Amino acid sequence: MTQCSLDIIAPIAAAIVPPSEAWHQRARAHLDTLTKPLGSLGRLEDLAAQMVAVLEDTSTQPLAKAVYIFAADHGITAEGVSAYPREVTHQMVLNFLTQGAAINVLARLHSAALHVVDVGVDADFAAIPGLLHRKVTRGTANMLRTSAMTDAELAQALHIGIDLARSATAAGETLLAIGEMGIGNTTAASAITCALTGASPQQATGRGTGVDAAAHQRKTAIVGQILAHHFNSPSPTPLDILRCVGGLEIAAMTGFILGATQSRRIVIIDGFIATAAAAIAVALAPAAQGYLIAGHRSQEPGHQLLLDHLHLTPVLTLDMRLGEGTGAVLAMPILASALALYTQMATFASAGVSEAKPEASEATV
Amino acid sequence: MTQCSLDIIAPIAAAIVPPSEAWHQRARAHLDTLTKPLGSLGRLEDLAAQMVAVLEDTSTQPLAKAVYIFAADHGITAEGVSAYPREVTHQMVLNFLTQGAAINVLARLHSAALHVVDVGVDADFAAIPGLLHRKVTRGTANMLRTSAMTDAELAQALHIGIDLARSATAAGETLLAIGEMGIGNTTAASAITCALTGASPQQATGRGTGVDAAAHQRKTAIVGQILAHHFNSPSPTPLDILRCVGGLEIAAMTGFILGATQSRRIVIIDGFIATAAAAIAVALAPAAQGYLIAGHRSQEPGHQLLLDHLHLTPVLTLDMRLGEGTGAVLAMPILASALALYTQMATFASAGVSEAKPEASEATV
Repeated sequence: MTQCSLDIIAPIAAAIVPPSEAWHQRARAHLDTLTKPLGSLGRLEDLAAQMVAVLEDTSTQPLAKAVYIFAADHGITAEGVSAYPREVTHQMVLNFLTQGAAINVLARLHSAALHVVDVGVDADFAAIPGLLHRKVTRGTANMLRTSAMTDAELAQALHIGIDLARSATAAGETLLAIGEMGIGNTTAASAITCALTGASPQQATGRGTGVDAAAHQRKTAIVGQILAHHFNSPSPTPLDILRCVGGLEIAAMTGFILGATQSRRIVIIDGFIATAAAAIAVALAPAAQGYLIAGHRSQEPGHQLLLDHLHLTPVLTLDMRLGEGTGAVLAMPILASALALYTQMATFASAGVSEAKPEASEATV
Repeated sequence: MTQCSLDIIAPIAAAIVPPSEAWHQRARAHLDTLTKPLGSLGRLEDLAAQMVAVLEDTSTQPLAKAVYIFAADHGITAEGVSAYPREVTHQMVLNFLTQGAAINVLARLHSAALHVVDVGVDADFAAIPGLLHRKVTRGTANMLRTSAMTDAELAQALHIGIDLARSATAAGETLLAIGEMGIGNTTAASAITCALTGASPQQATGRGTGVDAAAHQRKTAIVGQILAHHFNSPSPTPLDILRCVGGLEIAAMTGFILGATQSRRIVIIDGFIATAAAAIAVALAPAAQGYLIAGHRSQEPGHQLLLDHLHLTPVLTLDMRLGEGTGAVLAMPILASALALYTQMATFASAGVSEAKPEASEATV
């Protein structure tokens, strides 16, 4: 790994430009010529217009779908914040590689290439093929005691994400999804949510993989202690938040979003933890927002806070809380549908279908 | 067409048995062994368990997807209840046959066989191949003046649906969706909703394909007049409601649901009008409810009333209001995902992944 610095982040963030407004308007106008009542495809029309504004000439860009899972461990697991033991991060990475996890099934069914990235799992994967070996360190430090990462570790994790996004773009992947695996990472996401949005630990802390009521109360108190330990100043910078209370996989996802949106790619974000990474990315680069699609609304209460903060409406609401990119990949057939409708439907003129009667012209107002 | 009678409906309805409770419990137990936190796939677990309870041994029953669109005209269009002229029903059927409509795009993308059925379009399709010719009559009567259908017309439309469902089952189609095309049919669905649920015309009447505010007010008043004209007795029978204020395509969908659920098939219902047909079917045969999946929640206000009435939670909420079966087919990749997760994921034991710690055993309570 080459030397990394945080200095390169600001220029990358500044280089991100919003999706094309001209193509967005062109897409809206085309949608209104298709054989359906005006606006009757609802959110599918919004999604199609957003994708066209990013991809521009969709006739030359078939959708090549891919999902990146970033895995890392968390020092905060020493405080008993999760229902599962820390070694499950390691075990689930092996499960991804042997095709047994939920994300394997969904990626296969929906024809998305699956890339598994070790950015900080507390295990030795050296001899294992099929894994992207990008380990920064074997998990973060315990953020109840010290910063989760050093400056150098944060920079390295961000760069890993940026580089992978650039490789994805170079390889022709056009519809990118991100997900994660990391026992303990809902605690990090809750702390990020509070620090970014001003929400209380009570509002932003959920049951993660499924702790009981007593453990949930303890987890909420720990999030409060973490915030008190790190953030005495009223408005910490996004990178300070990420370094102090984030995770290696969260930082890598933030970097991935910066790299992908700089390359003008749609990024479908998964649940609570991926959205925490997206919220940091948008805090660094507001123009990145236009490239993001929220795949689903998770059951974690903090997720809705972040979606509101980012002004994102999720494609699906299926009460899922699994991570791994599952909610993002599950949205892919809906996005593919939106784009197929846009490119393949007949127009009123081509099909010889009568348009709405004049008195109905204000129908959709 | 052979002679049809309404007498055969009650025996068919009585022959419908609920999905297998034993297979449902077996499915739930299997879901809890898969490598994911308990219950973390949310609604996908409910959908998988429902499908297994219907299909039973899923290893021997691959999903063969199909969508049936029933098209018919409505006498009530004489009252100016729609934003589109009546001939659009005819024109859209031609659009279906030339592959230009939204449902064509979605059925193609999601590998669902598309069947277009003329049960009562006010046009002559005699020479056109690719259409299922089942015309009962060229549209219903104006239900503001008289019953939409005669007993004989209703019986014939119901039988058409029953027969098509039986043919579908015989042909090996396992995942069936229903949709419709019929200018004026949201007015019929609103009247059915009021008659079945006791809702007011104000609650159950929406803008359909997109009438303006004045036309919406007029449409609401017309629904009130229709109800006053037909239903003086406090509780009309489901078949009376269907005959007086229904439509030929609605009756055919009701028949289709009866036939499909008698043959133990999942039926994905589309939006407001298909759900009105489902509400009549469940009123006739309460056991049919367990076979129904609501594909989506439409923007029509009456749709939510019917979903509540049927205790159905829609798979998708995308603010669509198009019909044609589009919301039902769009749910198919989600249902296929649920079943693939069920059949293909590794178990904790097979993957060597640690289960939740003992103190988290009440996690999902």
